[in-house]
Amino acid sequence: MQADTNADTGAEADADADGLFVPERVAVVGATDREGSVGRAILTNLAEFDGDVVAVNPGRERVLDYPCYDGLGDVPGPVDLAVVVVPPSAVADVVRDAGEAGVPNVVVVTAGFGEAGSEGANRERDLVALAEEYDITLVGPNCLGVMSTRSGLNASFGPQMALPGSVAFMSQSGAFITAVLDWARDQGFGFSDVVSLGNKAVEDETDFMRRWARSEETNVVLAYLESIVDGRAFIDTAREVTTDTPVVAVKSGRTSAGAQAASSHTGALAGSEAAYEAGLEQAGVLRAENVEEFFDFARALDGLPLPETDAVAVVTNAGGPGVMATDAVGDSGLEMASLADATRSALADALPANANVHNPVDVIGDADVARFCDALDTTLADPGVGAVVVVAAPTAVLDYDGLAEAVVDVQREHGKPVVASLMGGERVDAPADVLADAGVPNYFDPARAVDSLDALASYAAISERDYAAPRGFADVDRERARAVLERVTERESNQLGVEAMDLLDAYGIPTPAGGVADSPDEADSLAADLGGDVVMKVVSPDITHKSDIGGVEVGVPREEVRDTYETLVTRARNYQPDARVLGVQVQERVDTDAGVETILGMTRDPQFGPLLMFGLGGIFVEVLEDTTFRVAPVSTDEAAAMLDDVDAAPLLRGARGRAPVDREALRECVERLGRLVDDFPAILELDVNPLLARPASDDGDAGALALDLRLTVDPEKL
Amino acid sequence: MQADTNADTGAEADADADGLFVPERVAVVGATDREGSVGRAILTNLAEFDGDVVAVNPGRERVLDYPCYDGLGDVPGPVDLAVVVVPPSAVADVVRDAGEAGVPNVVVVTAGFGEAGSEGANRERDLVALAEEYDITLVGPNCLGVMSTRSGLNASFGPQMALPGSVAFMSQSGAFITAVLDWARDQGFGFSDVVSLGNKAVEDETDFMRRWARSEETNVVLAYLESIVDGRAFIDTAREVTTDTPVVAVKSGRTSAGAQAASSHTGALAGSEAAYEAGLEQAGVLRAENVEEFFDFARALDGLPLPETDAVAVVTNAGGPGVMATDAVGDSGLEMASLADATRSALADALPANANVHNPVDVIGDADVARFCDALDTTLADPGVGAVVVVAAPTAVLDYDGLAEAVVDVQREHGKPVVASLMGGERVDAPADVLADAGVPNYFDPARAVDSLDALASYAAISERDYAAPRGFADVDRERARAVLERVTERESNQLGVEAMDLLDAYGIPTPAGGVADSPDEADSLAADLGGDVVMKVVSPDITHKSDIGGVEVGVPREEVRDTYETLVTRARNYQPDARVLGVQVQERVDTDAGVETILGMTRDPQFGPLLMFGLGGIFVEVLEDTTFRVAPVSTDEAAAMLDDVDAAPLLRGARGRAPVDREALRECVERLGRLVDDFPAILELDVNPLLARPASDDGDAGALALDLRLTVDPEKL
Repeated sequence: MQADTNADTGAEADADADGLFVPERVAVVGATDREGSVGRAILTNLAEFDGDVVAVNPGRERVLDYPCYDGLGDVPGPVDLAVVVVPPSAVADVVRDAGEAGVPNVVVVTAGFGEAGSEGANRERDLVALAEEYDITLVGPNCLGVMSTRSGLNASFGPQMALPGSVAFMSQSGAFITAVLDWARDQGFGFSDVVSLGNKAVEDETDFMRRWARSEETNVVLAYLESIVDGRAFIDTAREVTTDTPVVAVKSGRTSAGAQAASSHTGALAGSEAAYEAGLEQAGVLRAENVEEFFDFARALDGLPLPETDAVAVVTNAGGPGVMATDAVGDSGLEMASLADATRSALADALPANANVHNPVDVIGDADVARFCDALDTTLADPGVGAVVVVAAPTAVLDYDGLAEAVVDVQREHGKPVVASLMGGERVDAPADVLADAGVPNYFDPARAVDSLDALASYAAISERDYAAPRGFADVDRERARAVLERVTERESNQLGVEAMDLLDAYGIPTPAGGVADSPDEADSLAADLGGDVVMKVVSPDITHKSDIGGVEVGVPREEVRDTYETLVTRARNYQPDARVLGVQVQERVDTDAGVETILGMTRDPQFGPLLMFGLGGIFVEVLEDTTFRVAPVSTDEAAAMLDDVDAAPLLRGARGRAPVDREALRECVERLGRLVDDFPAILELDVNPLLARPASDDGDAGALALDLRLTVDPEKL
Repeated sequence: MQADTNADTGAEADADADGLFVPERVAVVGATDREGSVGRAILTNLAEFDGDVVAVNPGRERVLDYPCYDGLGDVPGPVDLAVVVVPPSAVADVVRDAGEAGVPNVVVVTAGFGEAGSEGANRERDLVALAEEYDITLVGPNCLGVMSTRSGLNASFGPQMALPGSVAFMSQSGAFITAVLDWARDQGFGFSDVVSLGNKAVEDETDFMRRWARSEETNVVLAYLESIVDGRAFIDTAREVTTDTPVVAVKSGRTSAGAQAASSHTGALAGSEAAYEAGLEQAGVLRAENVEEFFDFARALDGLPLPETDAVAVVTNAGGPGVMATDAVGDSGLEMASLADATRSALADALPANANVHNPVDVIGDADVARFCDALDTTLADPGVGAVVVVAAPTAVLDYDGLAEAVVDVQREHGKPVVASLMGGERVDAPADVLADAGVPNYFDPARAVDSLDALASYAAISERDYAAPRGFADVDRERARAVLERVTERESNQLGVEAMDLLDAYGIPTPAGGVADSPDEADSLAADLGGDVVMKVVSPDITHKSDIGGVEVGVPREEVRDTYETLVTRARNYQPDARVLGVQVQERVDTDAGVETILGMTRDPQFGPLLMFGLGGIFVEVLEDTTFRVAPVSTDEAAAMLDDVDAAPLLRGARGRAPVDREALRECVERLGRLVDDFPAILELDVNPLLARPASDDGDAGALALDLRLTVDPEKL
């Protein structure tokens, strides 16, 4: 399915990729020469465009220097891109004209759609239908426009054109684009393409990510997002894209305050932060927390080779700043490299006696460029060193210009990433330019240099990850599971409980032996099958806290099963006379002391769909909020990672003298539950609590056993 | 004690404060005109000094343009400050000369002391003795020098003089000073005084903090530290200083990698990060994690008034960047202000219909300066708003220069702190200068603006905190405690165990009733006194894990006490024939299920002294490392904060249906243990584990009860 879909959209996108960013002819619909108008601003911005520009506006022959036509249908010859700035009520007609005229790409700048009440939302639905009818690649509405330095195209009303570069940038905020372009010009930071996503009615973040992954001119994709339209599609696409092309995202509205602000800003339904966090991580997208990281990460990814190991060396002429860089390494996902003996003795030969030949390598304050670069060269040659951080303080004997050139040379020679913190003021301007031209970022703060290296190493791990799709399970009985879920249609509430445990059984998640009895005789017969003492629980959709009303009895001997049945039912009736009692669950007795109680749950996120939650039972989830999330279905590796991600993970590995639990069994439960909730969109929420994780046993006991279940089902989705 | 000490040193420091940074006459000892020499560099740097400069070097009449004398004793008239650059072996003689000549301040630039092996360490000890003998304020050795823009003094060999300002800066790294000064000049960031601390043989961070707290010209103290010489003195001084003067520190070597690097760099014994973290927090010092934060915090603290509440408002013309600022608020210790109804209606009256009058206030992209500032003015007038973050993206209608001036005016008018993120490139240069001149920091990244406001709010809380000194306890029996500790002198090991529980009793920490019996009869007699079943534990300094060898029996009835005594002793002997058995502890039986097991421990840090640790028992400390630390003795507030600081704190407050524990009783145990370990430096390590925290009871049961004890004692310190 997934591969087919990609192939289709791939072909489609290929065909019009150039037409959007590298068109031959652009039409501005709604072009005017009125001072201060958006139409005029766009026309003016198109002055540097490599191709043809035409204006469209009824009753004019020319607008500014461009020929003008009454409608898109009147323009002689093909138009690759139409930029629409007519009033909102007129946009649909223009898009229809574009479709009829065979214009493949339309950018709707006009606002007044999904962000503007129900009338606007209706207008936006019309646009979507037209884009589909005519197979139009439609950007916006309510956006700043698009630009591409590949073709000199500035089809936007922003005040500033991008400098050429190889970073593609999409943003859900037009204001952020104007701010960034203004700043980036000053910084010499360039872009290949820039797109203002607007309301993302048709083309969204996933489409542009896919498009740019195929663009030779794009090395890095940057995305400023306040929402993701289709989380699952985003993850699937990003997983493929990020093996070759790094994607860095700022997902704004991370905090609850921010999420509230974002949703009032865009009107988009914000999904949960837990889902975004899990989804972006599974997608392989690097997440920047703020604007500074966003561009720091982009710079490093655009300019430097990827490190082969996470072990870095710091080479410095300044002890204190060297320690700060080392602290930053300690804070990051990187580690300080242990230098090889040969490296250390080579350094000792080349450096003065009071130099430090361990990492951080300190060439001492009286080092000149030659000594500094000797040490750099020797350190980079160490096979255990994946990358180097150069940290320098200004001294009378160190020529920063010479140092910058030498750093560039030695970086190229070794092909390993190098980041720099040549500290200082104006004296750093020229050497920083030399470094930047060679792709080596330079920061006053050594910690920023280290952080950009950390992003590089994170992406190296992403690009190498060997993603296996979630497994299928041949033994899954989908029809049996559906039959269990359909029981909800006979209920007044849409909740199912422990009586639905055969749902888990149908998907191969181990449950205790037993069943629901609706008479004392049946209870006795179930207990006879089980042998030994049993656990009995009243089954009622109206009673949620069974233990609290004496609705659970543990360790019931065979001879008391009939009486206990009556007692449990009576207690339920006494507690709540109108409670519907469906019977009594009779289960084999399980020794919970021999294992660790975990919780495996699921909620459904509006953007990402089924979101799995894992944690340890009792205080761990409820008091310490020690949980981890993944979008389902999950691969074997993702399921295994969930077991490691919680703080209490050592308890599963056998901390404090316990036997380690059967991780494979537990992991498989996570995978199987992921399949179940993905197969049945009708399952809105689900909790297996507890899911008992037990040590592996030779006598056939399941390593993981679901002891109780609650779920909420939407009967309409069955 | 503390108040007296401060008064003394206060008077002393007052007398020479001006002599060090604002001297009338400076002598450079070791001055030469040799190109490239440190002596020449210092003399040259003194060209702009407001006072007199003389050179000292035998056999010369002038060095450069300065008169030269053979020795300090030969200089006619008083010398306030001597800067010493002679070879290390000659430094002591120069310091003696200074003492004899009545020179009160000496800066030893020369290296080759504590950082250079045992010979250097000896030389450093000589300097300390001489400084004490002659009451000399001695800076260094092994430092870059000192500077003060108050007097135009650059008594350093750095390449750059500071710009004037009101931030005082001390650094344990000279290279960091040269880097910072170079950068700061470019940024227009000024300093009052700068000192390179060097080896801190005499004057250390605490001395300079105290000195600058009294300086009218200093608003903020910045400290780059790799170690703190005397943690206790630092805390006591900083507590007083920081009520009026903010202190911001980078403590380098935070991470284990960094700490290793720092200790090889300075040779200083690094204390534990836990101690630094606790100590700096107790001191009221704001800790910056990196160079960027260091100066961002300083800028905000230097230029802005303190906020009266943590509630901030964001006012923006750009939705996306406004959300980013809101996220940054969510990440920080600040909160988004709820605007008053009156504020919202005033905003609604003044702004277009599609503006957002909730916080973040969005004045919409077509806002000009007048509209933007109207909204700012209205928002700042809201009494619930403590501070405002201005976030702007460039538009055709917004004049940044005008906006900056208006922001400055409205900030002054309301007297509340305002930080800015006017985003963009060159167009921001001039308006950022306007803002900076008025003390309003401006950053491209809205998150950085918010973070500096966060630091301001943190300092506001510090300046207002009502610190009460740790309580004394009249019922403490110090002599009895000493007698218990002295038992260690009769031991082969320096460990004491459960048999030393009367140590806790002597300090008013509740312990179970009972005692150590050294015969079956005595055990029986103890059990008779206790009544009911008892707990019996073998007492042996050679057996650490008593339970593992069957050395503990719980719930022993009276009639079995004698036999159990024999059994426990036999088991110990069987386990380890040469174990010294001191007897058997007979304790009342305590119901541990009725409470929460906690751990209260102590280690001794080389810099900060006794460091208390608190956490919950079992997995919480051992697996989750959920602990908190404070330097002892602790105030009532500090002890109470420890109970709240652990992640598992809700369990003490009665999570999951339990009764809340008696927090006052638990807190008092922390305070009392803090007193104990502070009173007896001989206690090297101590663990009360478990310290049972119980619900408050009406029947006289202690709310907290120490059930077991282990400690390590240094008999030489008794």
